[in-house]
Amino acid sequence: MNRICELFNIEHPIVQGGMVWCSGWKLASAVSNSGGLGLIGAGSMHPETLVEHIRKCKQATSKPFGVNVPLMYPEIEKLMHIIVDEGVKIVFTSAGSPDKYTRFLKDNGIIVAHVVANTKFAIKCENAGVDAIVAEGFEAGGHNGREETTTMVLIPHVRQVVVLPLIAAGGIGSGRAMLAAFALGADGVQIGSAFAATEESSAHIDFKNMIVNAKEGDTLLMLKKLAPARLLKNKFFDKVQEMENGGANFNELRQLLGKGRTKLGMFEGDLNEGELEIGQVSATINAIKPVTLVMSEIVSEFHEIKRKFNDAESTF
Amino acid sequence: MNRICELFNIEHPIVQGGMVWCSGWKLASAVSNSGGLGLIGAGSMHPETLVEHIRKCKQATSKPFGVNVPLMYPEIEKLMHIIVDEGVKIVFTSAGSPDKYTRFLKDNGIIVAHVVANTKFAIKCENAGVDAIVAEGFEAGGHNGREETTTMVLIPHVRQVVVLPLIAAGGIGSGRAMLAAFALGADGVQIGSAFAATEESSAHIDFKNMIVNAKEGDTLLMLKKLAPARLLKNKFFDKVQEMENGGANFNELRQLLGKGRTKLGMFEGDLNEGELEIGQVSATINAIKPVTLVMSEIVSEFHEIKRKFNDAESTF
Repeated sequence: MNRICELFNIEHPIVQGGMVWCSGWKLASAVSNSGGLGLIGAGSMHPETLVEHIRKCKQATSKPFGVNVPLMYPEIEKLMHIIVDEGVKIVFTSAGSPDKYTRFLKDNGIIVAHVVANTKFAIKCENAGVDAIVAEGFEAGGHNGREETTTMVLIPHVRQVVVLPLIAAGGIGSGRAMLAAFALGADGVQIGSAFAATEESSAHIDFKNMIVNAKEGDTLLMLKKLAPARLLKNKFFDKVQEMENGGANFNELRQLLGKGRTKLGMFEGDLNEGELEIGQVSATINAIKPVTLVMSEIVSEFHEIKRKFNDAESTF
Repeated sequence: MNRICELFNIEHPIVQGGMVWCSGWKLASAVSNSGGLGLIGAGSMHPETLVEHIRKCKQATSKPFGVNVPLMYPEIEKLMHIIVDEGVKIVFTSAGSPDKYTRFLKDNGIIVAHVVANTKFAIKCENAGVDAIVAEGFEAGGHNGREETTTMVLIPHVRQVVVLPLIAAGGIGSGRAMLAAFALGADGVQIGSAFAATEESSAHIDFKNMIVNAKEGDTLLMLKKLAPARLLKNKFFDKVQEMENGGANFNELRQLLGKGRTKLGMFEGDLNEGELEIGQVSATINAIKPVTLVMSEIVSEFHEIKRKFNDAESTF
C-alpha cells in the first residue's frame, strides 16, 4: 500500500496544491472526488470565506480533503481555530516553520503535512512531528525557496535525510513526471499548475487561457529581494524585471508590488497589471480540461510508463 | 537494447559531460573504461593541447570516447579539422546552432550529439541530422539556457517533440536521478559534477574539495546579462552578486569577469578570485572518488530502484 494513499485514505497519491485564487471548494472537491487529495487554498481567503469553502466542500464530496495554510497569513490564529471548529481533518502548512502549529493541529486530531524547499526544513518537519513532507522545487509556481534547488536535486536529497512520507512538488504535470518523482524517492506528488488551468479552478478564465498559451521561458523566478516568486511574463513582470535589472532595492520593489496584485491578475483577470503566479510546467499545458480528465491522463500515463519499466530490455 | 548504448557502442547509457578544466584524457578514458562514454572537453584547450589529449586517450582506452566542442570556440575551424584528422568518432557540440557543423562531421563519418536547453533547438537538431540530443536543465553547472527550464520539465517536453535518442543532463548524480530521467523519457544521462570531483578529473584538488563541501543553495545561476552560468559561491561570486544587485550592465560585468577566471579557479585553485562552475547536485557529493566507484554506485542504485518499481505494491 502506498504511504500517501494510506495516510490520507485516498485512491491516487496525487495532492492538488493549495493555490491562491485557484483552489476553492469546487477544485478541491473535484480532485477529492477523482481519487486525489483536494486542498482549499486559505492563503487568499478571508476567515469567513474559508468557513464557507470548508462547508461547501463537505457538501460536494464525502472523500477526504484538506486546507493549505501559509503560515505568514496575517490572522493565522483565527484561521487555525476555524479549521479545528469546522472539523477539517487534513492541513498542509507552508511558508514558515513546522514548529509553529504542528503540535496544536496534531493535538486536535488533524493530519499535518508541511511544505519545504530544502533538507534543513525537512529535518525540522520530522522533529516537529508532522505526518508528511512536501518538498517543492524551483520550477514550481508562486513562492519559492531561496536555494533555487530543483525537484530533480531536492527529492533524492530529502529522501536521504528523512524517513517520513514524502510528496514531490514542482514541475509535475504528467504521468512521466509523477513516475520520475517516485524514482527520486517520493511517495506521492503535489500538482498545482495543471489544476490551476482546469474548469473547476476559480482562476479567471483569461488567466487560464494565458496558462494554456504559455511557452518555454514564459515564467521566471522574480522578486528575489522580497520573497522569490515564479511569475508569468506580462506587463507587470516586465516592470519588475526592468527595475530589478536597474538595481531596485527592497523598498522600491515593495512599492511597485503594492497590494492585491495576485487577486487583480489571477482572480479578476487583469493580465497586464496583475501578478500571475504559475509553474514552469505551464509550457506543457495546452487546454482547459475538467479535473477528472487531468487526473485520468496523469494516472494512466504513470501506469503506462511504469509497465514499460517492467520490461528491462526497453530501458537499460 | 538501449538506443544510447547501441549508438555509441557502450555498456551503460552514461555520458560524462565535457567540462572546462575537468575533463581531459584521464577522466574521459576512465569513464570509457568503466563502460560509459567519456568526453574530452575541448572548450578549455588550445588546439595543440586537444591533439595531445586525443592521442593519450586513445592509448589509455580501447573503448569509444568523444570530444565536446562548444561552438563559440574562437579557433573552431582548426578544432574541427583536428577532430577529423585525429580520427575522433564521436563529437558532442554545444553553445551554438546544430546547423553549423553537423553536416561536416557526419560527412566525415562522425557520430554527432548536440546539447540543447529548449524544444526549439531540439527540433532544430532533428532537422540538422544529429544522431542524439542532450537536453540540459537549469540545475546543471556552467553555461545554461535563458529559459531556466529544469530537467524535470524539459525532458518530457523534448520527448514530446522529437523521436531521436535523448540524453538528459542537469541534476543527475545518482541512480535515482538516472532512473527518473528514464521515466521522463530519456534514453541516457549526461553527468558532469559527479565526475568533476573524481580522482581522474583534472580540476585543482582545492576546487574538488570545495565541491565536496558544497551545501544546498551554494550554487546559483549568475551573469544573466552576459551568458547565464551556474557558479559556486566564493569571493568572486559575491562581487558578481553585489554588482548585479546594484544594477550593473553588460559592459561592467564583462569587465569584472575579465579573462581566464575559470582557469584561475577550477584549474589553478584560486578559490577566491576564480570562477567556479559546478551543478546544484554538488550539494549531494561528499567525497572525491575514483571514476569506477562513481559509475558502479550510480549503476547499482539505478538497478536497485528499478527492481523496486517492478514490484507494483511498493510504489503505487
